[in-house]
Amino acid sequence: MTLSYDGTDYHGFQDQGEKLPTIQRLFEDAVEKLTGERLRVIAAGRTDAGVHALGQVVNLRTGSNIPVDRWPYALNSVLPADIVVTGASLVEHDFHARYWAREKTYRYTIMNGPFPSVFCRHYAYHVRGCLYAEAMASAAGLLIGRRDFSAFRGIGGSTTSNIRTLKALRVEASGDTIQIIARGDGFLYHMVRIIVGTLLEVGRGRQSPDWVATVLESKNRALAGVTAPPQGLCLMQVKYHGEKDRTRKAGETTA
Amino acid sequence: MTLSYDGTDYHGFQDQGEKLPTIQRLFEDAVEKLTGERLRVIAAGRTDAGVHALGQVVNLRTGSNIPVDRWPYALNSVLPADIVVTGASLVEHDFHARYWAREKTYRYTIMNGPFPSVFCRHYAYHVRGCLYAEAMASAAGLLIGRRDFSAFRGIGGSTTSNIRTLKALRVEASGDTIQIIARGDGFLYHMVRIIVGTLLEVGRGRQSPDWVATVLESKNRALAGVTAPPQGLCLMQVKYHGEKDRTRKAGETTA
Repeated sequence: MTLSYDGTDYHGFQDQGEKLPTIQRLFEDAVEKLTGERLRVIAAGRTDAGVHALGQVVNLRTGSNIPVDRWPYALNSVLPADIVVTGASLVEHDFHARYWAREKTYRYTIMNGPFPSVFCRHYAYHVRGCLYAEAMASAAGLLIGRRDFSAFRGIGGSTTSNIRTLKALRVEASGDTIQIIARGDGFLYHMVRIIVGTLLEVGRGRQSPDWVATVLESKNRALAGVTAPPQGLCLMQVKYHGEKDRTRKAGETTA
Repeated sequence: MTLSYDGTDYHGFQDQGEKLPTIQRLFEDAVEKLTGERLRVIAAGRTDAGVHALGQVVNLRTGSNIPVDRWPYALNSVLPADIVVTGASLVEHDFHARYWAREKTYRYTIMNGPFPSVFCRHYAYHVRGCLYAEAMASAAGLLIGRRDFSAFRGIGGSTTSNIRTLKALRVEASGDTIQIIARGDGFLYHMVRIIVGTLLEVGRGRQSPDWVATVLESKNRALAGVTAPPQGLCLMQVKYHGEKDRTRKAGETTA
């Protein structure tokens, strides 16, 4: 299923085993209301507290006979208004939303006007003072490729390798808004937000674009910029191997 | 001063004399924190509960010696994040934000996608099903001019005359979003929201565009559409007589 959510009021996607509200818990509660089953839902990206999604992908295995195209409407009728299911399809029996993902796209939104926007305060990071978007774009270009992103990995996370392929990193400026779009085969813990914090050092004119290459080569987290705050981040899209073929040949009762 | 706010958590602009949170109360609290004065603030438009503003105008009379250009920063430092002052200027001693207003512009946002947008749920009205924006635009054209808008006046409000000049009523469709922009010399209680509810009858294909002229002529509120919900509405701009001259010749300590 494809899922959009406003992460403002949640402690991230993944259930922490505590009583804190998470997207996962609310989603599993909604499934239980519909089917009576307490199912485990698996997400492509375990977004942090305050981070949003427009194209999160989750999978679950159900014995329910609700037709697959009715699942979004059925779930939306029991989900809170800040979580909305936007699509559902049958997948192979061994599909895994996280392991099978081959590409993810995140968007980070910065607003750069003299005053914060009241409507975007939960969905963008307000940065006062002039930002040089062109310098940020030059710096971003130096991070693209298959690299060791140790310098851009936050403390925490469970992966062993710090090598990822960043396929694209675009900086798009329009009016008072700067959007940073990152597309890659996977992202380390806090990687997008540390990249944004690092590009902001360049945007503010404190560092030259070339400095970003030095940070990358150092593999030293301490040299990179601060982790940008969560509210600017949104998981936009997740792509899978053989996506078009898969949904066609699927036949199990797995939504 | 010019003011933007997210009206979601407020019982409208105007204080009700009760303990309910209103923009006015929070604004007056902020002024008191800054200056020690309990001042009465006057707004151009008394927006309803859940209605937003990007260009509300308020005036107050203060003995404070805070320079006028510092007022936005000073107030924003004590206001909650959902109320942001975006400008301030000195005005004549007898200036009145409501009585002196000569033109207001409101925007109403409708989202028409198959699923509600999690980010816009407080800032747009989600309407499912196909809407004919062109028919809505044709109908809108029939309401422009100096008219008796009795059919588009909600129960409540204190004005005696129902005649207003609607200078422009544009219907702009882009992707899943329809924006209705209303500009006029003044608006009756709930007028914009009733106009939107009426145009939606046309947009849904239940009525022809010409029907809107019949509703207008009837002066009968019961014939118009329902009042569209508040969250789609936003006060965008207020204009004043002799605006450019006024700020130049003003000299009193009135912000």
